[in-house]
Amino acid sequence: MKNSHRNILKGSLMGAFIAALSISLCAQEIPFMRNRIVSPELKPDRTVTFRIFAPSANEIKVSGNWMSGFGTSESLVKNDTGLWTLTVGPLDPEIYTYSFNVDGIQILDPANSQIVRDGTRHQGVVFVPGEASSLYAVQNVPHGTLSKVWYDSPTLDLKRRMYVYTPPEYDNGKGKFPVFYLLHGGGGDEDAWSTLGRACQIMDNLIAQGKARHMIVVMTNGNPGDAASPYEAPPKAEGSGNEGVFGMASGQFEKSLVKDVIPYIEGHYRTLSGRENRAVSGLSMGGMQTMNLAFDYTETFDYFGVMSMGITSSDQMGRDWFPDVDNRVKNLASKGYKLYWIGCGSDDFLHEAALNLKAKMEENNLKFTYRESSGGHTWTNWRIYLSEFAPLLFK
Amino acid sequence: MKNSHRNILKGSLMGAFIAALSISLCAQEIPFMRNRIVSPELKPDRTVTFRIFAPSANEIKVSGNWMSGFGTSESLVKNDTGLWTLTVGPLDPEIYTYSFNVDGIQILDPANSQIVRDGTRHQGVVFVPGEASSLYAVQNVPHGTLSKVWYDSPTLDLKRRMYVYTPPEYDNGKGKFPVFYLLHGGGGDEDAWSTLGRACQIMDNLIAQGKARHMIVVMTNGNPGDAASPYEAPPKAEGSGNEGVFGMASGQFEKSLVKDVIPYIEGHYRTLSGRENRAVSGLSMGGMQTMNLAFDYTETFDYFGVMSMGITSSDQMGRDWFPDVDNRVKNLASKGYKLYWIGCGSDDFLHEAALNLKAKMEENNLKFTYRESSGGHTWTNWRIYLSEFAPLLFK
Repeated sequence: MKNSHRNILKGSLMGAFIAALSISLCAQEIPFMRNRIVSPELKPDRTVTFRIFAPSANEIKVSGNWMSGFGTSESLVKNDTGLWTLTVGPLDPEIYTYSFNVDGIQILDPANSQIVRDGTRHQGVVFVPGEASSLYAVQNVPHGTLSKVWYDSPTLDLKRRMYVYTPPEYDNGKGKFPVFYLLHGGGGDEDAWSTLGRACQIMDNLIAQGKARHMIVVMTNGNPGDAASPYEAPPKAEGSGNEGVFGMASGQFEKSLVKDVIPYIEGHYRTLSGRENRAVSGLSMGGMQTMNLAFDYTETFDYFGVMSMGITSSDQMGRDWFPDVDNRVKNLASKGYKLYWIGCGSDDFLHEAALNLKAKMEENNLKFTYRESSGGHTWTNWRIYLSEFAPLLFK
Repeated sequence: MKNSHRNILKGSLMGAFIAALSISLCAQEIPFMRNRIVSPELKPDRTVTFRIFAPSANEIKVSGNWMSGFGTSESLVKNDTGLWTLTVGPLDPEIYTYSFNVDGIQILDPANSQIVRDGTRHQGVVFVPGEASSLYAVQNVPHGTLSKVWYDSPTLDLKRRMYVYTPPEYDNGKGKFPVFYLLHGGGGDEDAWSTLGRACQIMDNLIAQGKARHMIVVMTNGNPGDAASPYEAPPKAEGSGNEGVFGMASGQFEKSLVKDVIPYIEGHYRTLSGRENRAVSGLSMGGMQTMNLAFDYTETFDYFGVMSMGITSSDQMGRDWFPDVDNRVKNLASKGYKLYWIGCGSDDFLHEAALNLKAKMEENNLKFTYRESSGGHTWTNWRIYLSEFAPLLFK
């Protein structure tokens, strides 16, 4: 709220409507003004100041993903009024997430209302604008539509939910479009790409810049035992199997994508059909699913994007996650494709697996694009990979 | 994660994929297990136990909207390990929101990953199932589709976003449907009804029970200066006016609904046209907008639902928010309508305003339905009103 408006609050309907902000602290919401602590405060020089009012705390730290190394944090400093402050940066343009630790308890910044869910956790968000993050911002360009759609999956015996992005031109009511299936990682769900991954903003902006074609993007739930994200799924029977990440090696998700999702999409949307109009990409667990789809359903897609995944070693991973890989690579080779893209960070704990995949492709004289970025197993990288992979599709 | 699965974590790909939960505490996510504190824990007798591990805290309280009175809270009790606990209830079936206060800092329950945004604040959620809250749960029934749609508003000179719910039958690809425009309150935005208001679940369930017709529900952003909710709007020029709740009395939102939103919806969806196929309802500020639409655009709708609003007094509200009301009531009377529904809680701070509206309707021999509930200006009431109003539409 702007200072210039404060003077009209008192005794006016504003007070009543501020009540209608319905701060649910009590059975009835009544007018309530809190201290207007600004945190995070982003300055034009891209420094960021964090603040929290906590007179009785002994130690407050911030942990954010601009820091390097696991468990790294920086301490805030308390002044004599009980306000704790820390300025960091300047930070490179990017979307950062962070939390505070107050005397041992990890909390969200109480003054930051912009947060994001990552698996079962929430983090505060700091968006540092600039050229490198401009694709992730909502710009004044035509926007696609994002829909939460329920469909029937006979393969998994579930009604399931997915997100469908239709590009700006789809809204014209005519024309047919190619389809890009975009898969999340372990611990995630169908919400991940449109929130953490900024997929809608990236697609809107790439399309507006003429860098990517107008395409439909389908973001499914890759956990074969789940109907939907945890808070929007109907109750499920205990012991129904394939729960969460534990079903990821069953191959059932991959089968359901081909047998259930694609027919639904092509039956309900104005799509171009044929493998030349279908792409699939995923990160981590979704990268494994993309590899499996390339091996076992090669004829369904012409474009594959494997992010932060590869042929893992039994030593590292406790079992062989790609059994019979040599025969399956031969299937891929015999059926051909237009693009097989592999992206991995040099610090990713699966970097060696990505190199194994690269070697396997070379050994079989299979064409591929290998993109090695800096950094590790992070959304920073996955947003970059999406930004680079989507422009290569359907051309 | 289930205990029975813990033994397979060590050294397996599971460890790697748990990393892919991508807890963004650090530049690279690595395997990380936290204490599995369960909070809130809901027991079959509908008692709820809150827990937080905070060895160095001095006082921890919980505030939740099952408590009566503003600022009410209850203290948790610390044991010798530093775990704080409180059991409340049994609670009536309902969706509750709450937060903790740790030594003066308001925080979310760190163990509860289900949270909801209310204006600029987030709260933890406790869903107590039972008959009274069954309409709010995701049930195993056919689900509609919820879409985030951008449209052009020449009236407000903005590209704006809204949510469109299409009912399960819409997915069949044939048939035309009536449209219900559902408006949020001050401080809210287009997200409010589908999150706090559980509008999709309520509509899915009412339709599945045969209590409501298959209808399209359009949830707009009622703040005429805003393109979209704060975190999904493009940057806006400073001083562009009509910001937030301050534009609510301009009449511009009401005009844009009629001139921009309705033509977009009827041009892009399979809709039944004519006033007999249009309804509008809103809470608080949205109730004021509904009253204005009934006064000034009577011929556009046949069904009006005013929730927690009425003819406010200048004494209470600092100004006359319904100028020229007598002439405008005459316009309503001359053009007629099928339903004018007023819902208000007996403890609502706008209860007297609702009674004023009731009196004005009686004075003019206008038919209406008046529903007085217990409680106040709360989402508990607004969910109930939606559950009762939607079944009355288009019949």
